[in-house]
This record gives sequence, structure tokens and C-alpha cells, in this order.
Amino acid sequence: MRHTLSVHVENKSGVLMRITSLFVRRGFNIESLAVGPTERPDVSRVTMRIDCSQHSLEQIEKQMHKLVNVLRVSELGPGEAIERELLLVKVTAPPDRRAELMSLGDVFHARVIDLGPDALIFEVVGTPEELESFEELVRPHGIKELVRTGRIGLGRASAKPDAGRRLALIR
Amino acid sequence: MRHTLSVHVENKSGVLMRITSLFVRRGFNIESLAVGPTERPDVSRVTMRIDCSQHSLEQIEKQMHKLVNVLRVSELGPGEAIERELLLVKVTAPPDRRAELMSLGDVFHARVIDLGPDALIFEVVGTPEELESFEELVRPHGIKELVRTGRIGLGRASAKPDAGRRLALIR
Repeated sequence: MRHTLSVHVENKSGVLMRITSLFVRRGFNIESLAVGPTERPDVSRVTMRIDCSQHSLEQIEKQMHKLVNVLRVSELGPGEAIERELLLVKVTAPPDRRAELMSLGDVFHARVIDLGPDALIFEVVGTPEELESFEELVRPHGIKELVRTGRIGLGRASAKPDAGRRLALIR
Repeated sequence: MRHTLSVHVENKSGVLMRITSLFVRRGFNIESLAVGPTERPDVSRVTMRIDCSQHSLEQIEKQMHKLVNVLRVSELGPGEAIERELLLVKVTAPPDRRAELMSLGDVFHARVIDLGPDALIFEVVGTPEELESFEELVRPHGIKELVRTGRIGLGRASAKPDAGRRLALIR
């Protein structure tokens, strides 16, 4: 079963390694990981997607509690959170194919952010599922390069400030 | 000096920990990190932002060469690559403030992706600098929660397929 975890950490060297090694020791692969700043300059937020049982998740959560510089751990439940991801994709686009590609892009609200003689770069935001659909759609044209951020999420605006099952509150 | 590194890795447990520990051992903090899928299902792409000297970067690059499951390391140079980041921000928005906030959002092509009785969530894509400007602009309204993906990038469409200084080609 797949889970999305949101972890607030102090912005210190080593904290990311301590988190990732928790998963490695158990042989779990982290499918996606995004680490970026938050509203507080000394705090970063780690969003990770992992595939493990509910039982394993609880075990990992208990161990995360004990890690230095980990402030808070919550799970972003599918119904309670809004999840988004960013995709940049460079697609083969000779002049006679550009118009067709751009029409595809319009359907997904994709923006063309760079255009060369035989390629263009799309920027697309959506749920991970939407990005996969877009990828499949442009694949026949020839994908030269592709990069994705991994998903991030927030509890819904209509819910309480910290929506998502709170797993741990350290301080 | 800040650098953006793009690292292609085999999608195996442990590779991320090996990369992050390289930086930890040298006491470098990773400012942002994004790990997501690529055009190949067995390969992930790690984009990281670090603050270190050119000399240290070259040292780290040499060590990365030796890591298991690391396929390719390149630096995304500021002029050669297009960099983007995704921000989700939940802002206090009572009904009488909504219109004003949405006008701010329009300027940055921000989309409202959720709306509650007293808050809304913006989704914004841009360069990391643009996201910081947007953050400052909505801050006076009250930021309830904020999450960013960390930057990702691709070599320009007008450049060669693998723009960016290639640091290592392992296979």
C-alpha cells in the first residue's frame, strides 16, 4: 500500500540522511521525495511516497520520533489532502509538429517554457496520475528528457489547519 | 557558491542514502532535493541544490562516480538550463479578502486549487526567485501552511540534448 508522508525537519545537515536510512535499513524504496523550504526559514518539509504496509508505516513512524531534528510527522491521506507534482518534459518538435503538440498541451494546461528548432519543453502541474497521462500522450512524439519533482501536498483548505492523520508531534 | 546538480540513478533502495551521506560527511547542507521518475521506469532523477565551492563540488563529483547505482551526474548551469519549482500555499482568506488575494494570484499565474470558508490554497510554478516574491506578497494575509518541491531543471531545448556541464558518464 502506498503512503504519502509529510515530515517537518530542522534545516540541519544530516537529517535527510537519517530519515532515508530508516527506510533503507528496512529495504523499502522511496518512490519519490521532495525537500523544500517552508514558511519558517529554519524548517524544511520533506514529502515522501513509500510503498509499505500499515504496520511497517507505524514502525517507521515510531523510529522517526526518535530522530534528531525531526519536528513533526504526518500522513497525507488520499481524501484529506491535495497533492500536486511538477513535470518538465523536452519533446521532439520539428516545426510541422509544433501546432499538434501545443494543442495536446492546452488540454493539460501545460505551458511551453522553451522552444528550440526541433524540440520544446513543457511545464505541467497536476496530480501524479494526470502527469502520467500527459507523459503517455507525448511519448509517441519522442521524449528527449523528463524530470519530475515528486509529489507534495497540503491538507485541504476546508479542513482543520493540520489535516491528515497526525502521526507524531515532537515539539 | 550555489550549484544545481542533476543525478540519474538506478531505482534501487539505498542509492539516495549513499548520495546524501556524501554531503553529510563533508558537512554540506542540501538546500533542496527533488527525486522523481524519468522517461525510463528503472531510472530516477535526483535534482539537488547545494552551497559549496567549485573545488568541493569537483571532489564530491569524483566520489559520486564511485557510488553503486549512480548512472550520470551533470551540473545545471544557470544560463544553460531552465529551472522551475512548485509551491503550494494555504493562505488565510475570509470572504472579504478573497477577491484581493485572487488578483495577486493572477499576476503570478497562480491557480486556486482549494477554497474553504476562511482559507484557500494556491498552486504556483516559477523560478525559485519568483516563488519567493509570491510568498512575500501573500505573507501579510497570513500563511497557514506552505510546501515547496525544490527546484528541477532541464537543459534548454535550443541546446544539445544533454545541456549542462556533464560531470560524469558512468555507463
